[in-house]
Amino acid sequence: MAGFTTENHQLLSKIAMTDQHGENSPYFDGWKAYDNDPFHPTENRNGVIQMGLAENQLCFDLIEDWIKKNPTASICTIEGVNNFKDIANFQDYHGLPEFRKAVAKFMGRVRGGRVTFDPDRIVMAGGATGANELIMFCLADPGDAFLVPSPYYPAFNRDLGWRTGVKLIPVICHSSNNFQITKEALEEAYEKAKEANIKVKGLIITNPSNPLGIVLSKETLRSVVSFINEKSIHLVCDEIYSATVFSLPNFVSTSEIIQEMECINRDLIHIIYSLSKDMGLPGFRVGIVYSYNDAVVSCGRKMSSFGLVSSQTQHLLASMLSDDEFVGRFLAESAKRLAKRHKIFTEGLEQVGITCLKSNAGLFCWMNLRQLLKEQTLEGEMELWRVIINNVKLNVSPGSSFECNEPGWFRVCFANMDDATVEVALKRIRQFVRCQRKEGEAVTGKSSWRLQKNLRLSFSSRMCDEGFMSPRMGSPHSPIPHSPLVRARN
Amino acid sequence: MAGFTTENHQLLSKIAMTDQHGENSPYFDGWKAYDNDPFHPTENRNGVIQMGLAENQLCFDLIEDWIKKNPTASICTIEGVNNFKDIANFQDYHGLPEFRKAVAKFMGRVRGGRVTFDPDRIVMAGGATGANELIMFCLADPGDAFLVPSPYYPAFNRDLGWRTGVKLIPVICHSSNNFQITKEALEEAYEKAKEANIKVKGLIITNPSNPLGIVLSKETLRSVVSFINEKSIHLVCDEIYSATVFSLPNFVSTSEIIQEMECINRDLIHIIYSLSKDMGLPGFRVGIVYSYNDAVVSCGRKMSSFGLVSSQTQHLLASMLSDDEFVGRFLAESAKRLAKRHKIFTEGLEQVGITCLKSNAGLFCWMNLRQLLKEQTLEGEMELWRVIINNVKLNVSPGSSFECNEPGWFRVCFANMDDATVEVALKRIRQFVRCQRKEGEAVTGKSSWRLQKNLRLSFSSRMCDEGFMSPRMGSPHSPIPHSPLVRARN
Repeated sequence: MAGFTTENHQLLSKIAMTDQHGENSPYFDGWKAYDNDPFHPTENRNGVIQMGLAENQLCFDLIEDWIKKNPTASICTIEGVNNFKDIANFQDYHGLPEFRKAVAKFMGRVRGGRVTFDPDRIVMAGGATGANELIMFCLADPGDAFLVPSPYYPAFNRDLGWRTGVKLIPVICHSSNNFQITKEALEEAYEKAKEANIKVKGLIITNPSNPLGIVLSKETLRSVVSFINEKSIHLVCDEIYSATVFSLPNFVSTSEIIQEMECINRDLIHIIYSLSKDMGLPGFRVGIVYSYNDAVVSCGRKMSSFGLVSSQTQHLLASMLSDDEFVGRFLAESAKRLAKRHKIFTEGLEQVGITCLKSNAGLFCWMNLRQLLKEQTLEGEMELWRVIINNVKLNVSPGSSFECNEPGWFRVCFANMDDATVEVALKRIRQFVRCQRKEGEAVTGKSSWRLQKNLRLSFSSRMCDEGFMSPRMGSPHSPIPHSPLVRARN
Repeated sequence: MAGFTTENHQLLSKIAMTDQHGENSPYFDGWKAYDNDPFHPTENRNGVIQMGLAENQLCFDLIEDWIKKNPTASICTIEGVNNFKDIANFQDYHGLPEFRKAVAKFMGRVRGGRVTFDPDRIVMAGGATGANELIMFCLADPGDAFLVPSPYYPAFNRDLGWRTGVKLIPVICHSSNNFQITKEALEEAYEKAKEANIKVKGLIITNPSNPLGIVLSKETLRSVVSFINEKSIHLVCDEIYSATVFSLPNFVSTSEIIQEMECINRDLIHIIYSLSKDMGLPGFRVGIVYSYNDAVVSCGRKMSSFGLVSSQTQHLLASMLSDDEFVGRFLAESAKRLAKRHKIFTEGLEQVGITCLKSNAGLFCWMNLRQLLKEQTLEGEMELWRVIINNVKLNVSPGSSFECNEPGWFRVCFANMDDATVEVALKRIRQFVRCQRKEGEAVTGKSSWRLQKNLRLSFSSRMCDEGFMSPRMGSPHSPIPHSPLVRARN
């Protein structure tokens, strides 16, 4: 077969032949490293631990309990099969009325009941991925741009831009003010685009932020809404992590802010939602576009034909999300468990002096490893990342893949594994940092954290430290010699 | 809210503001008529009967039985809930390996076991709608064209062209040879496009044909494959009705044909599949792209992120389609029931001299009502269609919405209802035709079928004939007077 030959180049579309799906980034490379050698607590203890995937695995027991107690909620039980025909046959792109109603109610509840959502504005799409693409198709033409505060979710390049032709322009945020979005940064990005003759059609924000794990303050949101309203450009608010807020300050949705502000053109406001993160159900592909613009609702509904939620799944979730008692318990317990996991994880890092951006939401931390960089550049970051992936065997995601322009930040997911795996991951990180420190001391004679030139060998030494052995690198019979420097200190 | 104001025009994308979603056609208008006044056997006996929707409702009992006997196949039963976490969490765009394997096997079986499909080439999409769009995004740039033999599925305009910018060019087929696709017609359409400086990237065929309900012969398929191979353009074979073939000749897939032909560039061949028609599961949104082109498989898989099949649904179907005994029984019984329904329906039409194109597949007939047209034009067709929708209260779809260039053809679906509803529909059609004949005789004094000028009034007369009463038109106390001409004859 021809594969990617010149001939195929002519045969296929430009979209097919570009790299704009964005999958040639370290973010996805890390996944591949995990796929090739996945950690398993008994069968592959030295495999790669997946910390690059923002999954929420902490509350499945609650959902499973609910399922056991609610057999009529499914069309595939003796108790529920009478609904099979009607549900399996249902393909109306408006979605099951009970599903839209339940999702709208759930969205309101997650936002503290301070705002209500109209089921008739709930537009379905195939996960947040599909929802984000759908809203771009509605709002922007190829070549138009959306501003995105950086650091931002790496797959936005694919989701928002690959097939739509929409360009993403980073709004540069800085660690000096905890990566907050400022009006100045927005104006700067907007003006720069204007100078380059690029039409800016809108701004997309994630709140709670992915990858920062922080909620946007009311002040920031007001400033953002004012900005887009003045410019008459769209605001897309990706709020798919809204129920992952586990401590104060509370989550505030843009929906709330526009209730409080006057003279805002609501036709510019659109919310993206999903159940992949908040409920931990990414396989179910529930993506929602909630727009305050009638024309967008109407157009989006037609587009949702390309990525409807399976009616089997709609039916189940309609029941589950309508159960007020369950929803209340789930949200409370989920926040509690996330808070606990976050505490264990960040405190585990602090034992070796590693800090994360202070956060209260999300399924990840924004970890600061600047002190471990050989050089304070993006190349230095990539070098460190390769060591972490290949030697420490943790798939974490480097800041550069989030378009962060300060080197040394990494997103580390902590909710997609069990307690024991978190401990293994923490142990590895601590070993690694301690080794680096020791080696730094040995090499320079002072207490600085520096990597040696031969990073791989350098790190292989850590295995002597706490007895960790990888079958692939540095077993007692490994042909790769341990670092004599560190060996001498053990 | 602004709605479709000029301001909104500037705010939204060109895609959002065009009519190219194709929903302003009689095909969809008919659905709206049904939605506004749906027939119900007890609660709304005079409502509109939906004959515009190609659903397969004849075999749900078999599926329901299987579900009752296989509780472990679902993640929402006591027996299957242990798999809930792993499945709900599964979002790999390759799809569950067991799902791809089961679908590939099922596809082979539907094609008589004469061809096998490689699970690694199974790419998921959101229904056939999503699959058809996905393949266009892979193969063609905005402004490029695909040839489509007419009559063709009305929603192709939306599915293939709306967001991709791909143009559809009809290949005109004629009733004189039963709408077969000829090499001459293909060449003519191709040359015409070339003259207009339009780049033709491929040809899409539906086999079995929607709306014709016929299978393409080996000769036609060979000729089609030769044509695209000579031109070095793609062939997209939409085979979503492959298991609806209910009598001879058997279905032959393009996959089979390319096994037999030499020197065919397989990089040009792509199959679209779905379980919406063959299994009657449109709500489950299972769309499949099966490409023989490695680059398309690779690119398509990345695109499938926008419309993955719910993992809950993948898991269930993996089990169901792996059950050889069930699949065999289902396919045999489904064909038997479709054959019976088709026979009842076509024979019911023949009682009043209405014929359909001879067919052996699909969930519809291609009904010839030329004799009822007031004038042999597309306007005449629309006039008749409006009477059928509004007065006979059957949602059938006019040929013009399928780009058929001969007036008087209508697609009528027969498998989306129960036996009793078919009888009501047939009764209405027969009454209508008899009324027309009587009125024609009364008006002209000879036995011709002609509609009177005041169609609505004219048809309201039919209600006297067999005692049928609509609460909305022509009850005994209706303000609309019955036609005195027909009354005189009752």
